[in-house]
Order: sequence, then structure tokens, then C-alpha cells
Amino acid sequence: MARRVVVLSGGIGGARFVRGLREHLAETDPAAEITVVVNTGDDVTLFGLRICPDLDTVMYTLGGGIHEDQGWGRTDETFHVKEELTAYGLQPDWFGLGDRDTATHLVRTQMLDAGYPLSQVTEALCARWRPGVRLLPMSDDRVETHVVIDDGTADGGERAVHFQEWWLRLRAAVPARRFVSVGAEDAKPAPGVLEAIAAADFVVLPPSNPVVSVGTILGVPGVRDAIRERPVVGVSPIVGGAPVRGMADACLTAIGVETSATGVARHYGARNDGGLLDAWIVDDTDIAAVADIAALNITARAVPAMMRDIPTATALAASVLALADEVRSA
Amino acid sequence: MARRVVVLSGGIGGARFVRGLREHLAETDPAAEITVVVNTGDDVTLFGLRICPDLDTVMYTLGGGIHEDQGWGRTDETFHVKEELTAYGLQPDWFGLGDRDTATHLVRTQMLDAGYPLSQVTEALCARWRPGVRLLPMSDDRVETHVVIDDGTADGGERAVHFQEWWLRLRAAVPARRFVSVGAEDAKPAPGVLEAIAAADFVVLPPSNPVVSVGTILGVPGVRDAIRERPVVGVSPIVGGAPVRGMADACLTAIGVETSATGVARHYGARNDGGLLDAWIVDDTDIAAVADIAALNITARAVPAMMRDIPTATALAASVLALADEVRSA
Repeated sequence: MARRVVVLSGGIGGARFVRGLREHLAETDPAAEITVVVNTGDDVTLFGLRICPDLDTVMYTLGGGIHEDQGWGRTDETFHVKEELTAYGLQPDWFGLGDRDTATHLVRTQMLDAGYPLSQVTEALCARWRPGVRLLPMSDDRVETHVVIDDGTADGGERAVHFQEWWLRLRAAVPARRFVSVGAEDAKPAPGVLEAIAAADFVVLPPSNPVVSVGTILGVPGVRDAIRERPVVGVSPIVGGAPVRGMADACLTAIGVETSATGVARHYGARNDGGLLDAWIVDDTDIAAVADIAALNITARAVPAMMRDIPTATALAASVLALADEVRSA
Repeated sequence: MARRVVVLSGGIGGARFVRGLREHLAETDPAAEITVVVNTGDDVTLFGLRICPDLDTVMYTLGGGIHEDQGWGRTDETFHVKEELTAYGLQPDWFGLGDRDTATHLVRTQMLDAGYPLSQVTEALCARWRPGVRLLPMSDDRVETHVVIDDGTADGGERAVHFQEWWLRLRAAVPARRFVSVGAEDAKPAPGVLEAIAAADFVVLPPSNPVVSVGTILGVPGVRDAIRERPVVGVSPIVGGAPVRGMADACLTAIGVETSATGVARHYGARNDGGLLDAWIVDDTDIAAVADIAALNITARAVPAMMRDIPTATALAASVLALADEVRSA
């Protein structure tokens, strides 16, 4: 078959889905090619280190270096660099900077400083991790998600903080008024992104954050239009009215989207209504939503969508592939 | 008494001496002020990190963070950053980069990148370590010790390597033809260095490497002349014809100096002969050298000079102080 698949990924959810997809295709379609376009809006420079949380989570997950229980960061990790930075009084102290992880950031920072674009740096890092997929940052240009929140004064002013500060320090508990993707307007998709989408048999929106992960990727000029030319299957990151992990509800609320499998499907939109989706997968527990989603003109399926381990993620990927094949032949 | 003392220091030997001096003065002359001018010729940039081995050894030793047995690096150290850099295939792999140590380099690199001179960076790092002395780099300007060695070709050509490569990778086993202090000619002493020397009751040359540590400091324009205006007491780093630690013999041989307590005294030279030394301390085992050194017009003493622990270093410092007081009142 040699399918060509593009996945737009954030961190944990996207990474685990892609690992399942890779496992499933290795068994059923070994000549298939997977390209993962990864959100870089969460990237941040701390302590002089350029940190790309989503790229690293995908790379470590696919390369066997991930802390499985935690979902991010390295296995057998220690935090002595961070302990010492804190002892020096350096801020911020809320970022979980591991020692092994620091080496990745050092390699990346050094290459970026030497003038290599992030896509080439990512390729160089992947020469070690051998993820078995092509890993591309959404853009080589700097795009940073900032979160506009109340400034806490009586006159109701606002201020913007970096996404990482809102997510990690404030734990998304301070309501976001809106998200700003700084630099997105002038950003270009990284080399290979549009080509991979154009060549894809279909595109998958995995159970990543629809706002600050997939939404940020879609905000890079040219990406949404390219995807609209290809069949698109999505997997709901919302199960039973709550995010499977992370705090996607806080993001959805900020943009006025209901935290439900149907709400997110409506947000992405049906292809026939100018949206993206041909098909949408919800978890079995949300089977009641299938009719609502179908009414939106989106092919809907309820399957076991919780990725508890590699076999369940592989099974979910199989469901996505089956649905994608069905949509393509329709 | 409130003595003002300046010490020109390399790494381990100088650091341990200064710790003994601080302990002794705390007991006998609590208002005394110690300024340590530290060699920065060994400094190197690796993996994008600015590393100052001698400054860090002195800072950690005085601040209670040193790995005592090893003499350099941090206590309770791990090496996960380095393991990972090696896994990424990064060179060099011969530098012992610890995780805790990495944090120091990150703070320093970030401040230097922000435009702070090394002397201010050192002061900021010392705000944590509270060394109880004033720690000054010899210069804020880049001075790098390079070692000229045979290039290994049949036609007897030569090449230069960074001091750290010669010292750590080649273990000083490849003969040095000569040392080049790159940038020294145009370097200025760091703010406070000349002022501290001018105000000093005396200057100590501790048992640091006379060539690549003390010699490099003396090579910063203005430092040697300033020191010649003050009483100078040195401690031999050579005991029984061999360096107490390190590979000073390889350095002395390269510049044609005999590896002996007398040889080093002659190298520094007697004040009356245009050299630096008023007095020179050798270890008890070299008592036979005292007459030879006295014949050079240098006041000589044999005392227990091996610093095995803090008490022996403190006793050595007491001997140095007693001799300095004697020289000053002569």
C-alpha cells in the first residue's frame, strides 16, 4: 500500500498516537511513510538554552528515551542542573529541566547559534534517536504562543505571558482571555512541510490540544490551505467532557469552544462547511455524540480511544487508518 | 593587623592554599583581606558553555562545594549531561563536564552573552558561594593558553592545541615545544587587580603551576610590574623533584626550567636580580635546597609544605605569613 501519512502533533497525545501508528504500519504497511509536523509554539529559551518541548516529547517517545509514566522528559532523569540553577537564584524555577534533557538543549542551542535552522537541528538530533518517522518542526521561524490574562489590577487590564509560564507556573488556572501566536503571520512552514502534506494520502489530527498545539500549526500560513486539499481524520482529545490529559479545557473555553468531542469536531469544522474534517473518532464512552457529529457532515466513529499503552495506541491507529481508507474510497 | 594579601592562583594547589590562609587569618587576623587573582588562561568554550576551570576550583573549594578527593569539580556530582552529549556524538568527550558544574557554566555563559564582564559574573557566582575572599579573574579579556606540539609528520612540523586538550586529552605526555598565551599582549588586568596588588602588604605565589597558572597571570601586561613593587613570598609546587600534583614538570621542561624547588625559585628570580621573590618556601624534604636558594639572594625556609587537609594547609599558610612578616620588617 505504501501509504503516506502526515500527523500534526503537539506533545504527549500526538507522540503516543504516532508511536502506535508506526507500530501498526510496520506490521500492515511496512513501506508506509509517516511525516510528523510538530508544534513549536511552546518553544522557549531558558537559561540560554533553546527548549522545544513538543519536538522533544515526540522524539524521545519514538526513540525510546521517554519517561513513560510522566509522558515527557527523559527516562532515568536527574535534576542536578536545575537544583544548582535554583541555588544560584536563577528564575524561573518552575520549568522541569532534567540533566539528560539539558544535553539535547545544548546540542540544539549550539547548532542554532551556528546558523542551522531548527529543521536541520531536528534531523541531526534524530540521527541519534532514529524515530522511524520524518520529524519536522512546523516552521524554522520563531513562533511563540503567548497567553493574554488579567493583570490583576482593579481596572481590569491585561498582560501577556509565554505559554509555558501560563501552563506550568499558573497551571492554566488563570483564565486565558485569548492566545496570540507571536510571529505566526510572517512564519513560513519548515522545508518539507507543505510537500509532505501535498503528497499525503491523508492527514491525521491526533488527540493533541486543538488550540495551542494543532491550532498553532494550522496558524502557520499555508498549512491550513494545504491540508484542506487532503482527506483529514481527527481523533478527539476530549473524552467524557474532559481532556484525556493536560488542560485543553482551559484553552477551549478561552476561544469559546465547548469541551466535548462534538465541540472540538465543530471547531475544526466539516470539509463541506469550509472546515477541515472528513472524519472524526471519539472514544466509546462518547458514542452518544456520533449522531451529533454526523449531523455536522463529518463521518464519525466511536472506538476505544484511550491510549493506555503501546497496544491500545496501536489499536487506535488501526481504527484511524481504517476510517481514513474508508473516507478516501468514498 | 588587618593584613592585605594578594594570592595569584591556578586551580587545586592555589585553592587549597587560599582556604588554609583564610582559616589561619580568621583566627589570627580577622580583619585581614584576601584577594585572589585567578588564572583564566585555561578557560575554554565547550558545547556553547564558557568554562573557567581555575575560577571554579577556587570558588568551589572556598565555598564548600568542591569534590575534596578529586580536588576539582563538584561534590555529589553526576555526569548525565556529558553521557548524553557523547550519545549525540558530540566532541570532545575528554572533558569532565559534571551536571552540577554545568549549571555554573550556564549562569556564566548567559551573563557573558548578556554583556557582563567575567569579573562581574564571578562576583555574581560568588554571591552564592561566599568564598570569604575577593575572587578576581586575572583579566576580563580573552586570554587562552595554547600549547605548541609536534604535528606528528615526518618533516617535523608543529601545531597548536588548546591547553585543555593538551592537559586532559594528551595528558601532557606529548612534549610541549612552547606555550603561547593568545590574547595576552592586548589584555588588561581585570578591574581591581592592580589596585589590590598596590594595596597589598605582600603577594603570595602559592604552589600553583609556575608556567601555565602563575606564569600566565604574570603575563597580563602590568601585573608583573605591579607585583615587583610589593614583598613577594612563594611556595614551591615542586617537592622532591616532582610536582605535588598535576604535570608541572612537563610545563617546566618545555621552558627549560629544572623540575626542582630551586629551579622554580630561580625561574621566578630574586628581587635583587630583577626577579620577583623575596622569600621562598620549600617542603621539609627539600631542606638541602635551602642553601642553594639562599645563594640566589632569596630568603628560604623549609617547612611541612604538603597540604593533605585543611589543618596542614592552614599550617603552611601560617608559615607563609610568618615569613612574609619577617621579610616586610627586614
